[in-house]
Amino acid sequence: MTYGRPKEFDVDRALEAATQQFWAVGYEATSLQDLLKAMNLSKSSLYQTFGKKYDLFIRCLEHYQQSMVNELNTQLTNSISPKQFLSDFLEGVISEAKTNATRKGCFLVNTANELCQRDAGVAEAVSCGTRNLAEVFHRAIEQGKNQKKINTNMPTESLVDYLMTSVSGLRTMIKAGADRDTLNPVINIIMKTLYINEAAYQ
Amino acid sequence: MTYGRPKEFDVDRALEAATQQFWAVGYEATSLQDLLKAMNLSKSSLYQTFGKKYDLFIRCLEHYQQSMVNELNTQLTNSISPKQFLSDFLEGVISEAKTNATRKGCFLVNTANELCQRDAGVAEAVSCGTRNLAEVFHRAIEQGKNQKKINTNMPTESLVDYLMTSVSGLRTMIKAGADRDTLNPVINIIMKTLYINEAAYQ
Repeated sequence: MTYGRPKEFDVDRALEAATQQFWAVGYEATSLQDLLKAMNLSKSSLYQTFGKKYDLFIRCLEHYQQSMVNELNTQLTNSISPKQFLSDFLEGVISEAKTNATRKGCFLVNTANELCQRDAGVAEAVSCGTRNLAEVFHRAIEQGKNQKKINTNMPTESLVDYLMTSVSGLRTMIKAGADRDTLNPVINIIMKTLYINEAAYQ
Repeated sequence: MTYGRPKEFDVDRALEAATQQFWAVGYEATSLQDLLKAMNLSKSSLYQTFGKKYDLFIRCLEHYQQSMVNELNTQLTNSISPKQFLSDFLEGVISEAKTNATRKGCFLVNTANELCQRDAGVAEAVSCGTRNLAEVFHRAIEQGKNQKKINTNMPTESLVDYLMTSVSGLRTMIKAGADRDTLNPVINIIMKTLYINEAAYQ
């Protein structure tokens, strides 16, 4: 329960504005003035609700992750099949290969590059984002198995680790300059592992 | 043809010594004195044979790559099967997960991290190392296909790109703290793609 005058602003909207600001230029390059302007808040409201810049940044990382997980879960629900969802996700990763120069990239990956090495709180928030993605993969694979659309007897946990490894690998290949014509057949092979039946190959 | 007094030192041995020196502490941290001592050369011999520090460094990268490719080709030849060779290679990648703290890592990867962003010559030498590794994978897959031990109708080129993606992904997972118990099942899945028959899944 909170006492006193109710807050006169939408916390979620303010967090979204701060997230966009941090995302656009990074943590260090964002000034208090930038935040006040983007969030349309007074200094006292900002400090009272979100604490100092660092605390606000951690809240923004969490806000971004929550939005990302919500969106992925919605995509999974609306997809014609869990397999299609996974395939679309991988296509989305390599679609960055082309538009990399003009897009701002993933907020979590950017943050990991800027701050992870020297800040444990940030590293924890980023690694939480990774776990969230793994959970979405887990849900998709379990759904696919239940619907008999993902026909493999490989353990779901291993398939999740495998997909996380594949996504990391695709991102590195993109950074190293690989184009979509190279990576589309790679995604084709990655997706085929969802048909693997262990016993058939013993 | 060279004239005058023959060189009184083994160029390959000197390159190997310089490579070990650069590998141990990096390019910037290696002084001329370090190199003269490691290579057991006079300043004039060093400059006459290898040019300046930068030129020597590029030669060392090439020397390292050539040694690596020679060793991998020997391993491929001596392996009981091309598939076993590929499996051993992937096991080798994740074996670094455990010993990372005490080992000096891959000279090429270290160099990429230290210098690639700001030096085109170094970036080219490192990317040449990547192509060399891809060529060894290509040879292994073609051999396996010819010996009917790799039974897949996926194009060799795509499988090579797929393996390069998987190796990059495994390295990223290791950096992010994944252990061997997590990554062994991932390798198991990666290796199973060498059984994929496209037609069977259409």
